[in-house]
Amino acid sequence: MTTPNNRGVTLNLFVTYQIEASCETIQEIADDICIEQTVEVVRQLAQDSWIQENILGRAEEISLIETTHHPSSNNIYKVIISYPDKIIDYQLPQLLSVIYGNISLKSGIRVVGLEFSSDFLSHFSGPGFGVDGIRQLIAVENRPLLATALKPMGKTSQELAGLAYKLALGGIDIIKDDHGLVDHSFCPFKERVQECLSAISKAEGKTGKRVLYFPNITDSYEKMWEHAQWAKDLGVGGFLVSPLIVGLDTMRYLADNLGLPIMAHPALMGTLFSGISAEIVLGDLMRLAGADMVVYPNYGGRFPFTEEICQKIGHALKKGMGRLKTAFPVPAGGIDVKSIKILKQFYGNDAVFLIGSSLYVCSSNLAASVEDCIQAMLEI
Amino acid sequence: MTTPNNRGVTLNLFVTYQIEASCETIQEIADDICIEQTVEVVRQLAQDSWIQENILGRAEEISLIETTHHPSSNNIYKVIISYPDKIIDYQLPQLLSVIYGNISLKSGIRVVGLEFSSDFLSHFSGPGFGVDGIRQLIAVENRPLLATALKPMGKTSQELAGLAYKLALGGIDIIKDDHGLVDHSFCPFKERVQECLSAISKAEGKTGKRVLYFPNITDSYEKMWEHAQWAKDLGVGGFLVSPLIVGLDTMRYLADNLGLPIMAHPALMGTLFSGISAEIVLGDLMRLAGADMVVYPNYGGRFPFTEEICQKIGHALKKGMGRLKTAFPVPAGGIDVKSIKILKQFYGNDAVFLIGSSLYVCSSNLAASVEDCIQAMLEI
Repeated sequence: MTTPNNRGVTLNLFVTYQIEASCETIQEIADDICIEQTVEVVRQLAQDSWIQENILGRAEEISLIETTHHPSSNNIYKVIISYPDKIIDYQLPQLLSVIYGNISLKSGIRVVGLEFSSDFLSHFSGPGFGVDGIRQLIAVENRPLLATALKPMGKTSQELAGLAYKLALGGIDIIKDDHGLVDHSFCPFKERVQECLSAISKAEGKTGKRVLYFPNITDSYEKMWEHAQWAKDLGVGGFLVSPLIVGLDTMRYLADNLGLPIMAHPALMGTLFSGISAEIVLGDLMRLAGADMVVYPNYGGRFPFTEEICQKIGHALKKGMGRLKTAFPVPAGGIDVKSIKILKQFYGNDAVFLIGSSLYVCSSNLAASVEDCIQAMLEI
Repeated sequence: MTTPNNRGVTLNLFVTYQIEASCETIQEIADDICIEQTVEVVRQLAQDSWIQENILGRAEEISLIETTHHPSSNNIYKVIISYPDKIIDYQLPQLLSVIYGNISLKSGIRVVGLEFSSDFLSHFSGPGFGVDGIRQLIAVENRPLLATALKPMGKTSQELAGLAYKLALGGIDIIKDDHGLVDHSFCPFKERVQECLSAISKAEGKTGKRVLYFPNITDSYEKMWEHAQWAKDLGVGGFLVSPLIVGLDTMRYLADNLGLPIMAHPALMGTLFSGISAEIVLGDLMRLAGADMVVYPNYGGRFPFTEEICQKIGHALKKGMGRLKTAFPVPAGGIDVKSIKILKQFYGNDAVFLIGSSLYVCSSNLAASVEDCIQAMLEI
């Protein structure tokens, strides 16, 4: 593979694509991507040598990874393309545009790897708290964390606060709004946040255990920032955001400017996986965009995520990535309280288990159920 | 189909899903969507009758649309689910979340139709200018409009302004930045906008023909709004935005608050099509989010869009939709100047033809090439 300095530009982003093609067409498809994602013109309009050296993508490696013997089927190739950092301008919207913007409209091309230069990464703050910072906030060190969502939509603020009180009394670590809770007429944002914070604070007074409350600030452009600032002043523990819905860089801005932890929700993100692998979307991109915790469907729940994908997401959230802090994987989507020990074996201690329905229905004493879950997390 | 008033809630959103399932599982899958997209709990936690009536989605119709006779294959069903307007809270992020947020992480479910209540639509301004408003701005009534992009990335602001001058001299209607042009060190946003506006203004002085310049404001959260206001004060004609990248509601906010036309770019949007049909993404959702013009790949170019999809997008941008203005379809992505007459037959007069490379290479006299294109648009 060409080293980053080969062509007179100091630094590059290396994107690994998986491409369906025949052996006759793969080189042309790779060359087309280099043009489509940068200059977007026919070759004769990009002959300038400065543009060739400094702007165009470059196919650094093309290798066959799977042969299909059926004559009408394509092979699968791995193609690594480098893009100069400076065309990406060190910002997330342009990163998405360069790695997959226009070619999302084609077919048979998928992003399966990103390798950033350390200079590129140094332009991003990443998670403001990360695994260590979140642990410090709640003073829990020797076990996975337990989180749940306030639900269902349709309950009043007072009813949700009643749940929050019991959950906090049981010593839960994190309580988040269900991601469907917005500024509903039947459960307004500010009323809900006030009621829930007050209930949690009352429980904390009894137990001495700090509980972080993450209201959902995903909302219209006007309300999001206003809600976030208002809720921060009131003392929330952090924020739940659906970054694909509000824009990845909107979450990055919130993370950089609010000074509180961010939990990312995967709503709508499944659409991306046809073009960008789940571990990049829920791993690399979430960390670049400042998420301290990333919610995703656990294997074996009500979503078709495999153990392998979950392992890869967990790895992407914790791997070395410049000076960016690591982030908590937050497996969710139908976790059974009975599976806590197995999950702890699978994820290790540095994970947040987000358990919804199973926690609510496992006994009539919600606080006791929380205590049992935490006890299970402490056992080997 | 149940009428909107059937269940005590005044108004609903009707979403048509296409679902792969067996005849044994389709009812259960439909019921699961009603829960997953609203209350997100096991059934026993959503027994409250108020929640049943006012919150849950409801399967209004399930019909078989395609039978597969192979025993291991699933049939294709059409399922219409209604969601109460009030849970969507009249805002775009929650709309995306309710129609497809969590189920994007499942498989075999696709959104193929949206039917809004007129009350829901009345909460959105939609395109600020629309087809008629754009025509008034440039005083062109009897033909399709001609647009091009300033490119390739890598040219200096002065070089791009040189192109803009020739294009404007030829009487082009709209000049936009290539969507890859951001605030690059080699072509900074403010310098580019100043140079291009000045070049266009000089040409307008000679021809008397108004030309609209749309710089690309897709950028970091901090820069986008600042750039937009600065460029508006300088006299740009409108803005190019990539809404899926910056967030759909970010574009809606810009449209509602800038008082200038918005052209939407489809970067990254191809990823959505696996889950939401192209005509909804590029049609209904773009109009709700305030786009006056929507760029998408034309059939027969370098993207695999069919005539049928292009027709459907064009229809979605112009169909009746409450009091929302119609928007211009902007076919692009490899249009040949020679195909203008055919395109005019296909789209009619109310379309903007965005022609890039073909316009730049068809002769050595760019202004004359523009004149020829416009002449071709005037012929039947």
